[in-house]
Amino acid sequence: MSRIKQVIVIRKDLNMRKGKIAAQAAHASLKVIVDMMRRSLVYPYNEHEEWSLVMSEKEPLYQWLNGRFTKIVLYVNSEDELRDLYNKADKKDLPCSFIVDSGFTEFHGNKTATCIAIGPDYSDKIDKITGDLPLL
Amino acid sequence: MSRIKQVIVIRKDLNMRKGKIAAQAAHASLKVIVDMMRRSLVYPYNEHEEWSLVMSEKEPLYQWLNGRFTKIVLYVNSEDELRDLYNKADKKDLPCSFIVDSGFTEFHGNKTATCIAIGPDYSDKIDKITGDLPLL
Repeated sequence: MSRIKQVIVIRKDLNMRKGKIAAQAAHASLKVIVDMMRRSLVYPYNEHEEWSLVMSEKEPLYQWLNGRFTKIVLYVNSEDELRDLYNKADKKDLPCSFIVDSGFTEFHGNKTATCIAIGPDYSDKIDKITGDLPLL
Repeated sequence: MSRIKQVIVIRKDLNMRKGKIAAQAAHASLKVIVDMMRRSLVYPYNEHEEWSLVMSEKEPLYQWLNGRFTKIVLYVNSEDELRDLYNKADKKDLPCSFIVDSGFTEFHGNKTATCIAIGPDYSDKIDKITGDLPLL
């Protein structure tokens, strides 16, 4: 049986502080879920929004959220590698997010691609894209 | 105006790898949102679950999710400090999560409290609890 996981890939070449890495990883992880909810946006009544996730018990998302939501953190050494991985995941219709830091507090004010998340989905699907990358 | 943020507090005394810290921080961040959704659980039809977030535009959660979902990562040096902060946040009814790692792959098989998240909520409320802690 293939396990369900989310893989987060961080750019090591940016030499971010541990806390900055943690915050960017959390952005990437959460953004996948928020984007799924936003797609289902309805306005149930005035000035309120309802975001929802309707999930079959058989879906990987359901199983992941009701399980231990396993996350694995890997790294690359360039923006090009990061974009390439994201494009591959997106092409395979895997849920994924691409995080660009605003540069307000770091990176000398420059917008900077910092990390991506791929999944939650089946490990064997994600491993075809990220399988060779080292653990951070 | 008080900004809206989420604060993640990591136990530095565990000397976790960068990737482990990032995964635990992402757990903590996401768990706050997942717990909110789970509270609203409904079963729209057979074998499906619907999790939803109904938010007023004035709520901090709404503003955070539609903004830059700011996250700040701080640290403590013991489990006691971590528990104390969580209890204070919970007592003030701030949204918060407490993460215990299963120990399956690290910590010699022992269940280990690794981090918490507090918020999203107004900075001034959260700062009363975490204001003195150093950045990770």
